[in-house]
Amino acid sequence: MSDRPDVPRSHGRLAIRPSLQPRELGGPPTLKGAWQARVVTLFPEAFPGTLGLSLTGKALDMGLWALETIDLRSFGEGKHRNVDDNPAGGGAGMVLRADIVARALDAAAVGTPPERPRWPVVYLSPRGRPFSQAMARDWAQAEGLTLLCGRFEGVDQRVLDAYAVEEVSLGDFVLTGGEIAAQALIDATVRLIPRVLGNHVSTEEESFSEGLLEFPQYTRPTVWQDRAIPEILLSGHHANISRWRRAEAERLTKERRPDLWRAYLAAQGRDPDEDREL
Amino acid sequence: MSDRPDVPRSHGRLAIRPSLQPRELGGPPTLKGAWQARVVTLFPEAFPGTLGLSLTGKALDMGLWALETIDLRSFGEGKHRNVDDNPAGGGAGMVLRADIVARALDAAAVGTPPERPRWPVVYLSPRGRPFSQAMARDWAQAEGLTLLCGRFEGVDQRVLDAYAVEEVSLGDFVLTGGEIAAQALIDATVRLIPRVLGNHVSTEEESFSEGLLEFPQYTRPTVWQDRAIPEILLSGHHANISRWRRAEAERLTKERRPDLWRAYLAAQGRDPDEDREL
Repeated sequence: MSDRPDVPRSHGRLAIRPSLQPRELGGPPTLKGAWQARVVTLFPEAFPGTLGLSLTGKALDMGLWALETIDLRSFGEGKHRNVDDNPAGGGAGMVLRADIVARALDAAAVGTPPERPRWPVVYLSPRGRPFSQAMARDWAQAEGLTLLCGRFEGVDQRVLDAYAVEEVSLGDFVLTGGEIAAQALIDATVRLIPRVLGNHVSTEEESFSEGLLEFPQYTRPTVWQDRAIPEILLSGHHANISRWRRAEAERLTKERRPDLWRAYLAAQGRDPDEDREL
Repeated sequence: MSDRPDVPRSHGRLAIRPSLQPRELGGPPTLKGAWQARVVTLFPEAFPGTLGLSLTGKALDMGLWALETIDLRSFGEGKHRNVDDNPAGGGAGMVLRADIVARALDAAAVGTPPERPRWPVVYLSPRGRPFSQAMARDWAQAEGLTLLCGRFEGVDQRVLDAYAVEEVSLGDFVLTGGEIAAQALIDATVRLIPRVLGNHVSTEEESFSEGLLEFPQYTRPTVWQDRAIPEILLSGHHANISRWRRAEAERLTKERRPDLWRAYLAAQGRDPDEDREL
């Protein structure tokens, strides 16, 4: 963690620009101890975005979690509030400056615990550790999360090292910026916070909770375009339905995701090369 | 593709509710033949969201691509415009009905080519094929893309089968809905459309273009918090800089992503088990 003596402590506090959106929604103030997301971004207007709708939006209104944006631009230098510069060694694009990003992270850190497991500090980057359901579960147990959204070619490596920033990737693809990725990470995490989902869905039976993809779902009408719901689902025989669903989940996982299938078999102590008929 | 005689062709056209946002932005009409995204969603107000900002937003204003939302709710039935029902066989959550989703997909298909490679139709689902940069490249070559955003427990499997809907996953985690995932997929695709990025960044040198993670970046100040930019980057010796960057990209890939590293070695005809000193 940084404790730069040349940055007055008030700087971050003054420059922090929390999004007013959650409060504008008219909800009660955030509940004491509620999970918080802080997002350092050049596009604070991107938030809450989709997070302000549906179940995550209702939970935000209810104060079950809180969202603050920290406008990176407000920490920039000069008339144009520059935040980036050319890459050392040449090349296309621009790199976010270590000193500017550090000031924004200092502002985002005000009032947060310095221990990273209690409050992870994450940079969204395709070079990072792939985001997973296990990570979402860990983060939902933390007190909050700070997300740094990049743009351009990236961020000066030194600030990532100096601030113990964890690089996390949404997947093996490239986005124009980290904002959409940040929203995905926050959505996946917030929905695991108690009371956020209410009775709407179960987080127990869903994909990845057992390392399997989800079984196929059907609902009325019973016959649609000459396609009938599988008879067993209409039988009322719960044990058979449960067996069928597990077999379908296993079949889909085996077909579509050999990587998950191997991990699932290994976790069960079964031989990954077994040629089991499902 | 469906050609249900019991659904009047005008139905879809009347019920389609394209988001007005792109036009409200005051840009010129979409350029003829511009790439189009159509999103079937219960939350049309989530769009364009972050896609309306920064480079993707400027490109949308310029008509380099177009975005339409199809409000799934408007195809619902009864006073409450119901779109879902209980899962056949029991269980928590609600399943989007095949007949309702089919009508929305019929509306979204108006004026699009029926061949799926020319216009993929995609359902965002953790059970799908993991989204990748290669998929974004393929989609950017298509004429457009229809994305179906789920909510609740999922979509009746029969409509996915009947309409040859491709299931694509953003990653191994669960979101409250498909809207944020749809934005990520559109962002990754749109930035590969000619002229969208302008000179801002290069899509040639970045992550995954060669199967490697990106090398670390640095910019001014040359020394920050006693940390100096690696000397070689300030040497002006382009061949050495290029070699150093490749070595760093290889080191990072090997350390962080053994899966990508093995694929990279295999593509180069190198032995995955070699213990090469970088």
